[in-house]
Amino acid sequence: MDSSARQQAYDRGSTIFSPDGRLYQVEYAREAVERGAPSVGVVADDGVVLAARKRLRSPLLESASVEKIHAVDDGLAVASAGHAADARQLVDVARRTSQHHRLRYGEPIGVERLAKRLADHVQERTQNGGSRPYGAALLVGGIDATGDANRPRLFEVDPSGTPYGWTATAIGDGASDVRSVFGAAADDTGGRQRAVETALEGLDATADDDLESTGLEVRTITADGIETLSENRVADVLATVGS
Amino acid sequence: MDSSARQQAYDRGSTIFSPDGRLYQVEYAREAVERGAPSVGVVADDGVVLAARKRLRSPLLESASVEKIHAVDDGLAVASAGHAADARQLVDVARRTSQHHRLRYGEPIGVERLAKRLADHVQERTQNGGSRPYGAALLVGGIDATGDANRPRLFEVDPSGTPYGWTATAIGDGASDVRSVFGAAADDTGGRQRAVETALEGLDATADDDLESTGLEVRTITADGIETLSENRVADVLATVGS
Amino acid sequence: MDSSARQQAYDRGSTIFSPDGRLYQVEYAREAVERGAPSVGVVADDGVVLAARKRLRSPLLESASVEKIHAVDDGLAVASAGHAADARQLVDVARRTSQHHRLRYGEPIGVERLAKRLADHVQERTQNGGSRPYGAALLVGGIDATGDANRPRLFEVDPSGTPYGWTATAIGDGASDVRSVFGAAADDTGGRQRAVETALEGLDATADDDLESTGLEVRTITADGIETLSENRVADVLATVGS
Amino acid sequence: MDSSARQQAYDRGSTIFSPDGRLYQVEYAREAVERGAPSVGVVADDGVVLAARKRLRSPLLESASVEKIHAVDDGLAVASAGHAADARQLVDVARRTSQHHRLRYGEPIGVERLAKRLADHVQERTQNGGSRPYGAALLVGGIDATGDANRPRLFEVDPSGTPYGWTATAIGDGASDVRSVFGAAADDTGGRQRAVETALEGLDATADDDLESTGLEVRTITADGIETLSENRVADVLATVGS
Amino acid sequence: MDSSARQQAYDRGSTIFSPDGRLYQVEYAREAVERGAPSVGVVADDGVVLAARKRLRSPLLESASVEKIHAVDDGLAVASAGHAADARQLVDVARRTSQHHRLRYGEPIGVERLAKRLADHVQERTQNGGSRPYGAALLVGGIDATGDANRPRLFEVDPSGTPYGWTATAIGDGASDVRSVFGAAADDTGGRQRAVETALEGLDATADDDLESTGLEVRTITADGIETLSENRVADVLATVGS
Amino acid sequence: MDSSARQQAYDRGSTIFSPDGRLYQVEYAREAVERGAPSVGVVADDGVVLAARKRLRSPLLESASVEKIHAVDDGLAVASAGHAADARQLVDVARRTSQHHRLRYGEPIGVERLAKRLADHVQERTQNGGSRPYGAALLVGGIDATGDANRPRLFEVDPSGTPYGWTATAIGDGASDVRSVFGAAADDTGGRQRAVETALEGLDATADDDLESTGLEVRTITADGIETLSENRVADVLATVGS
Amino acid sequence: MDSSARQQAYDRGSTIFSPDGRLYQVEYAREAVERGAPSVGVVADDGVVLAARKRLRSPLLESASVEKIHAVDDGLAVASAGHAADARQLVDVARRTSQHHRLRYGEPIGVERLAKRLADHVQERTQNGGSRPYGAALLVGGIDATGDANRPRLFEVDPSGTPYGWTATAIGDGASDVRSVFGAAADDTGGRQRAVETALEGLDATADDDLESTGLEVRTITADGIETLSENRVADVLATVGS
Repeated sequence: MDSSARQQAYDRGSTIFSPDGRLYQVEYAREAVERGAPSVGVVADDGVVLAARKRLRSPLLESASVEKIHAVDDGLAVASAGHAADARQLVDVARRTSQHHRLRYGEPIGVERLAKRLADHVQERTQNGGSRPYGAALLVGGIDATGDANRPRLFEVDPSGTPYGWTATAIGDGASDVRSVFGAAADDTGGRQRAVETALEGLDATADDDLESTGLEVRTITADGIETLSENRVADVLATVGS
Repeated sequence: MDSSARQQAYDRGSTIFSPDGRLYQVEYAREAVERGAPSVGVVADDGVVLAARKRLRSPLLESASVEKIHAVDDGLAVASAGHAADARQLVDVARRTSQHHRLRYGEPIGVERLAKRLADHVQERTQNGGSRPYGAALLVGGIDATGDANRPRLFEVDPSGTPYGWTATAIGDGASDVRSVFGAAADDTGGRQRAVETALEGLDATADDDLESTGLEVRTITADGIETLSENRVADVLATVGS
Repeated sequence: MDSSARQQAYDRGSTIFSPDGRLYQVEYAREAVERGAPSVGVVADDGVVLAARKRLRSPLLESASVEKIHAVDDGLAVASAGHAADARQLVDVARRTSQHHRLRYGEPIGVERLAKRLADHVQERTQNGGSRPYGAALLVGGIDATGDANRPRLFEVDPSGTPYGWTATAIGDGASDVRSVFGAAADDTGGRQRAVETALEGLDATADDDLESTGLEVRTITADGIETLSENRVADVLATVGS
Repeated sequence: MDSSARQQAYDRGSTIFSPDGRLYQVEYAREAVERGAPSVGVVADDGVVLAARKRLRSPLLESASVEKIHAVDDGLAVASAGHAADARQLVDVARRTSQHHRLRYGEPIGVERLAKRLADHVQERTQNGGSRPYGAALLVGGIDATGDANRPRLFEVDPSGTPYGWTATAIGDGASDVRSVFGAAADDTGGRQRAVETALEGLDATADDDLESTGLEVRTITADGIETLSENRVADVLATVGS
Repeated sequence: MDSSARQQAYDRGSTIFSPDGRLYQVEYAREAVERGAPSVGVVADDGVVLAARKRLRSPLLESASVEKIHAVDDGLAVASAGHAADARQLVDVARRTSQHHRLRYGEPIGVERLAKRLADHVQERTQNGGSRPYGAALLVGGIDATGDANRPRLFEVDPSGTPYGWTATAIGDGASDVRSVFGAAADDTGGRQRAVETALEGLDATADDDLESTGLEVRTITADGIETLSENRVADVLATVGS
Repeated sequence: MDSSARQQAYDRGSTIFSPDGRLYQVEYAREAVERGAPSVGVVADDGVVLAARKRLRSPLLESASVEKIHAVDDGLAVASAGHAADARQLVDVARRTSQHHRLRYGEPIGVERLAKRLADHVQERTQNGGSRPYGAALLVGGIDATGDANRPRLFEVDPSGTPYGWTATAIGDGASDVRSVFGAAADDTGGRQRAVETALEGLDATADDDLESTGLEVRTITADGIETLSENRVADVLATVGS
Repeated sequence: MDSSARQQAYDRGSTIFSPDGRLYQVEYAREAVERGAPSVGVVADDGVVLAARKRLRSPLLESASVEKIHAVDDGLAVASAGHAADARQLVDVARRTSQHHRLRYGEPIGVERLAKRLADHVQERTQNGGSRPYGAALLVGGIDATGDANRPRLFEVDPSGTPYGWTATAIGDGASDVRSVFGAAADDTGGRQRAVETALEGLDATADDDLESTGLEVRTITADGIETLSENRVADVLATVGS
């Protein structure tokens, strides 16, 4: 039996391990994430920057309707990559979890706590039959007021249901290229301004041609709230980055 | 193992990813949409135009009983393409969702909100076992009074459960041809009158022979309500378009 | 893989699409309809005529017990074709739906509404696992008092769960031959009398030998109620038609 | 793929149609009926005769414990053929249905109504997963007091869940041979006495050797109730028939 | 396709008929009964005798713990053969059914009624998915006080869920040999004493070597209750039989 | 088809019989028991001795944490063999059953009753789908105060769900060798002291090398309670046995 | 059939035994544990040391977010290895079980009791369908105040659902190498200080290169609570160990 057939024997159900202890359906769900346009996150001194590329199939498509970054609470947002319909469901879970926490405790949910709750939800879909894993990953960025005052945090939730904390990372197509860029730039991160540049430099590494501001979505999350960069503002930064 | 057999290994269940992260049953459901007669939508300055071709297998068939466009609320309608029986169920979901919103909030549901609700419903059928995806897509067109005053909006809900906003688009057989026509005409959209012409030009691109008014359904949605164009009116516009 | 094997890969479950977007189990259910003796419906100026052939395996079989046409309400009847046991269940659903409507709204259910309710019920069996589609189709004929006064209507409900309105049509074995006959005769429809002749001309096209009145069931639905034609009356018309 | 393999692809579930619209599991259940010892029913002027052959594997077996004909109500009995354990369950359903009707309406259930109720129950097992069709058929014989006064009726309920009315018929091994006998004798049916002779002539056609009264069960259902013929009485009639 | 492969296509589920109308899983369950040590029952003038062989794998095994005959009520006992664990469950059902009847009606359950109730329970396991048939059969012996006074009765309940009444029979390994012995001895049955001899003659026919009293269990059921024959008593009768 | 392939056709579900009436999954569960280190039980005049070998993979492993013998009530204990995690669940069932009996009846559960209750629980896992049989067997030893005063009893519960009474037996790896030793020693059983020696002689037959006291667990159950032999005491007996 | 194909026949469901009594899915889950970075536990005179290696894919990854050791109660912690998302769920179960015990009994849960509870939970996933085993193992370390005063304990819970007590052990990649190191060092364990050195010596055996303090997590559990060693402290010990 060749190795491809061998793999096939174990890859059609999330409730089955392969002989070497792998969960193929979870790995295939990661491939679904890789197929999606990339999103990046960068932690700055005073906030977190989330940025995402959009695939606009047609000039007739309303760019605003292809949402990659979603506000979840005052100081909390998520960016997604992968199977778009799955990502939307995860964003809904994020919002419901956040609202529920506010109602119950009278304060916003922490960034790490939200990431862990989402990971719990995602993991369930990898262990029980009758469903499939989520074909989407999320970046959760925000300001954690609980614990140390106003600490910017960035978490990734992957299709296996594991939360990872990052100072800067990417999900989706070309994510590893982005992380190489981020790794090189790691020393000179600083304020939000510089983080936006870093984020766009990262996304630039995933594009064959020059990035265009119309196909980008950039948001900064600080203690003052979430700010969406205007297309002009994005174009200005792109001009800096591209040089 | 050849590629056809390889694909077959992963394409018989909506709860299974292929090794490259694809959901084949969702893609096959998209094929079901492509098999259906096309529907188009065009956003005008003062409203939205929905138009659809009908396949009338026989002159004995009552044209009016082959419904492709359905009023959902005063300023809200949907057009469908694909597996007709599935489309009818989605239209029912749209109506129930709209009525429920009216009862609960005392005002009509927004176009985008309805499209997202429908997308949520459609996505569920792509992740859980014991069912299959919907083999139909919808165009949701209407006037959003929430937010900016009386903004005409057009959304597509596809079988994966993703909502897309468009200024003009098509679903069903020949949809990409229609979008080419719309793309070329994008600059001179304007009032409702021009949008009806654009819509019919689009549908004309999907027909081998000349379009006939009997096999067409055209509706305009404005702040004043939904208007169905008479067969004569459609014939008049067709005469203009065909020239 | 040859095309027969290819088809087989997707045709054993109603919750699965083929790569070209078809639902084979629904198509096979349509074959079950084609296997059944035909039923026809013709809309006249003042009513609807339903007629059906019966397969009487033996002279010992009580002809009256092989029911093809069923009264549902005062001005509403259905004719069936296909798997007889499935058809009986659909007729039960039609009756329960009709009674429920009367109890709730104090008036008879409309012809189109009933057809749509039945179609909804039939569609469910094509999308969810653990069951199979209905192997039967129905013709729903009656007088719609809602809307315009006493309008005779005829609908078909097929195994996919789609309702179609017709001026005259057939279901079951030889249905397309019948529709050819009806298409040619379309111009001279008129009163109920002529519609009965048309209906029997249609059924005659499905028979290798001459039709016999014992194997036929003919009913007229008018504002005055449902009338069953006597065997003699049917024989008289047959004599006219056969000439 | 040869035709046997082709058939096999569709014959292992009651929730699946074959490409030509057949339900093989239902057809196989009919084979189970054919494997069983035959039962016959004959309508007379003043009642119905039910008769059945029993397979007595051993002289040690109590003939009375192999029940083929069962009283259901005062003027209502059923005879069975096929898988014995399945038949017993159907007889239980017949009795419960009959008792329930008496309790609710204060009068015996009609013959046709009972046959239809049983058919409904049997059909369910042919459409839903997780079960199998009944491998048994029933003859329902009795006096219908509802409608015209004291009309003797005979119905067959087959494994597909279809009820058929007969003047005389048979189920089980050799049923078609019996019907040939009945068809020839159709003209001279008359009183109960003659019907008993006809019934035994029919059963005689299914036997290689002469019938023996010990392996037979004969009951007459009239307005006066159900009468079981004594073994001597059956032997007397057999002597007449055999000549 | 050879016949063995053909059979295999239909023998792995109790909810599936073979093309010739057989239920293979039920037939295989009968094989499970044949694998078990035999039990016999003989009706005498004044009671019923149940006798059984036990397979004592080792002299260390407590003979009394291998129970083949179980008292169910004062005048009612069952003997089993087949898969021992399944048989124990059926005996539990028999006891619960009997107790329930006593509680509800204040009198012991009849022998035939109990046999039929058990058969109903056994049949269910042959028609529904998610379970398997019982791999055990029971002999139900007792005194029926209902109907004619103190009539001794003997019933068999087989894995298909059919109850059979017998004057004498056997279940398990060598059952048909036993019935041959019983058939020959049928004429000289009489009192309980003779029935015990007959029972042991029957069991003797299933043994390669001489029967030994330690591996036998013999009980007589009369109107006075259930009596277990002592090992000495059994040895005495064996001496008579063996001669 | 060779016999191995033939067996495979029926061995992958507990709800399926093989053509010769076997339940392969139950037989495979027995193999799981055979894979486990052995436990033995010996009935003495005044009590029961349970002894077991432990597999201590490493000197770092706490011997006490590898429990093979468990107290269930004052005069009642169980020893296990087979899949360790399954055995733990069965011990839990034994304890819950025992506690429940005490609460309800105010007295300890009898040895035989507990063994039967456990067997009922184990049998369920062999007849219904969605689970698997237990891969473990138990020895239940104790003093039965019900019936004759203080009678020591020993029962085995195997993976099929059958309870067997023994004077001395073994479960697990080498069980049949142990029973040979016990059979030879059967004559000179007597007091508890001798029973401990017998038990260790039995276990000695399963070991390639000399037994060591560290890998052994020995308990005696008498009317006075359960006593665990110290490692020294076990070493002393081993010295006697080994000679 | 070769042995690989033979194994494949039984390894795709946790509710199925192989012919030799193995549960392959449980064994594959053990492979998932082997794929994970190792965790170790060492019992000292006055406490327990848990230590773990982390796989930090990137310098951008926040080391603190890759949690391998988790406090469960004041004197109770767990370390994990294997599929990270599964491990997180098990840690949640540990915490909920611990909290529940505190709420109900007003005192902390014992180490052994918690390990057994977790093992019960893990075993369920190996016996029932519709799910899969946990692909993670846990070390449970803490101070047992129940029984003898303040006794340090260390337990392993493996994917089969079996709890094992250890004086020192490891789970995950290279666990057997670690145990060899621990076995050699077993004599000179002593206080907590020495136990930390032993733990790191063990982990060192699993690394190709020198261990670095950034990729290590070390905690000591004593009667005074849980203490996390600082990165500097870990580096100091590493310097000692590495020499």
